[in-house]
Amino acid sequence: MSKFFSSKYTSLEAYTPGEQPRDQQYVKLNTNESPYPPSPAVVRAAEAEAKRLQLYSDPESTELTRVVAEYLGVEPENVLMTNGSDEILNFAFMAWGDSDHPFIFPDITYGFYPVFAEVNHVPYREVPLQADFSIRAKDFCGVSGNVVLANPNAPTGTLLSVAEIEEIVKSNPEHVVVIDEAYIDFGGESCIPLIKKYDNLLVTQTFSKSRSLAGGRLGFGVGAASLIQDLNTLKYSTNPYNVNRMTAACGVAAIRDNVYYQTNAAAIQACRAYTALALRQRGFTVTESMANFLFIRAPKCSGEALYRGLKERGVLIRHWQKARIRDWCRVTIGTKEQMDVFLAAVDEMMKE
Amino acid sequence: MSKFFSSKYTSLEAYTPGEQPRDQQYVKLNTNESPYPPSPAVVRAAEAEAKRLQLYSDPESTELTRVVAEYLGVEPENVLMTNGSDEILNFAFMAWGDSDHPFIFPDITYGFYPVFAEVNHVPYREVPLQADFSIRAKDFCGVSGNVVLANPNAPTGTLLSVAEIEEIVKSNPEHVVVIDEAYIDFGGESCIPLIKKYDNLLVTQTFSKSRSLAGGRLGFGVGAASLIQDLNTLKYSTNPYNVNRMTAACGVAAIRDNVYYQTNAAAIQACRAYTALALRQRGFTVTESMANFLFIRAPKCSGEALYRGLKERGVLIRHWQKARIRDWCRVTIGTKEQMDVFLAAVDEMMKE
Repeated sequence: MSKFFSSKYTSLEAYTPGEQPRDQQYVKLNTNESPYPPSPAVVRAAEAEAKRLQLYSDPESTELTRVVAEYLGVEPENVLMTNGSDEILNFAFMAWGDSDHPFIFPDITYGFYPVFAEVNHVPYREVPLQADFSIRAKDFCGVSGNVVLANPNAPTGTLLSVAEIEEIVKSNPEHVVVIDEAYIDFGGESCIPLIKKYDNLLVTQTFSKSRSLAGGRLGFGVGAASLIQDLNTLKYSTNPYNVNRMTAACGVAAIRDNVYYQTNAAAIQACRAYTALALRQRGFTVTESMANFLFIRAPKCSGEALYRGLKERGVLIRHWQKARIRDWCRVTIGTKEQMDVFLAAVDEMMKE
Repeated sequence: MSKFFSSKYTSLEAYTPGEQPRDQQYVKLNTNESPYPPSPAVVRAAEAEAKRLQLYSDPESTELTRVVAEYLGVEPENVLMTNGSDEILNFAFMAWGDSDHPFIFPDITYGFYPVFAEVNHVPYREVPLQADFSIRAKDFCGVSGNVVLANPNAPTGTLLSVAEIEEIVKSNPEHVVVIDEAYIDFGGESCIPLIKKYDNLLVTQTFSKSRSLAGGRLGFGVGAASLIQDLNTLKYSTNPYNVNRMTAACGVAAIRDNVYYQTNAAAIQACRAYTALALRQRGFTVTESMANFLFIRAPKCSGEALYRGLKERGVLIRHWQKARIRDWCRVTIGTKEQMDVFLAAVDEMMKE
């Protein structure tokens, strides 16, 4: 830290991303990436656009916004495209949080929410999950604050129904409810249709998981036009050309090539069931996940021991030191071949 | 604006980017883009990386940072890569500005500086340029605030010497001086070597102009490791994966293919001299520009009339309503062929 750093930020603790080893030797099940590459049409779109990079990207992402809106059955004025969904989540904390308007979220959820609150000087309150790590919708009804919920939740994978989300949105008419649907394409039902009925609901999604575009950085938010205007004001006040030309072209191609991605998402769901069963047969506790990962507790060893033992065997998973989940690990669902390598490594560890 | 928008931002006036017409019919001399496409090696790098987009980008941009640092003769700890240089400029206002630490910049400069100040609630003071639009270095010495200067300045194109910059940096030891070198590659001398001597200097550059990568979004900052740490804390608290895989690969290839870009920058400088002479012969006033644009005043018509008349003739240039420069327009330097189209349109207008 320099001596010039504003006192506003000197106690700020930044987010720690999952390990991104550059040696490519691991079976990488630690950052919820898709095991499948982008579709050939997406690669072709990037190639074509690379030749025009001397021209600025369209700050309105007009074509991409139109294609995404059409796919979702909403109007372009209801959609804002961003540089990953982290960018739009940060804008949401900026736009609607302040000393009179805190954010409320579960104690166990995406670890970036408290950081977004801190960096924007927005007070926040963490509501404990149930003992089984499920979210009780009632806990977020009428809470006198903005709400942000990952649905499915991370790293637990549990899902709220659209009816439960609606209950939360309806009961907080004076605040905004942000539903982070990063993992919705793996069996969950999106609450995007509710944005037509409620002016206080923002739904965010990402191309990083089900659409194999983590390295392209593309996310978006869907909500009432007035909410999108707020977020646009912040985008045009910080980084108007936030989505680059290649990524915008990839996004259009990915929506048009939807069948490819739906097929992959179905394969991941099947592999999730296969892996969950195999782990339960080995005595693991596994939450009911509707995401592209499992949240698991080993029968005989700590979360850290499982993480370290697997890393020694060339398999990366994710572990946190946080007290309530210290015994648990999160495992991304890869291909069946990758999960068999993971299970073999687990078996080897358990034999010792 | 929604009823939920925080009162912190309700009077915020966002930045207005230059027109980005999508019909491709104009000779586009309004946003300081390069007329030359990225080098073939850059296009190949993007293509190769597009096939791996299912994997997150490296949040540290390790290879790109190393290659840029080596090219500049500094250490990787002195460099931070960002999603365009707007992102790092915003981080600079966040990091070092607050109610006790204003930012100071010229009255005529990059129009985003006051917006960065407003969105971050940082007070600012505008120092009038000299009558000929040059910056007087003395006006920014010992000013009891952070300083941001575009060098060359925009939209005027005038350049301060490294000695003048050093005088400003040395005289403000308790504040940070940010030198925005977006246009430095068109004949100016970079002040990056000064970062080894002063802990309060951040230099920002971009791949958007001389490196034909406006649509890829890549910028960076160079400064003391402690300053870079401040900015990194903000990056990891808002958007850790800010640079996508394709753009990072393009950046590495662009540095390695330096001769291609130096040749293009030399051609643009020659064409700038050609265009400036042609305009002066027609009675225009033209500032001494060291950037890839000219700042010009027509002999017989207002800035707005010139802008409109050229747009009707298929040539886009940039005009602002701001009082002091209302008679002026900014014209990006394209190829000689494009500038001949521009000059022919000017001649046609002046005949009327």
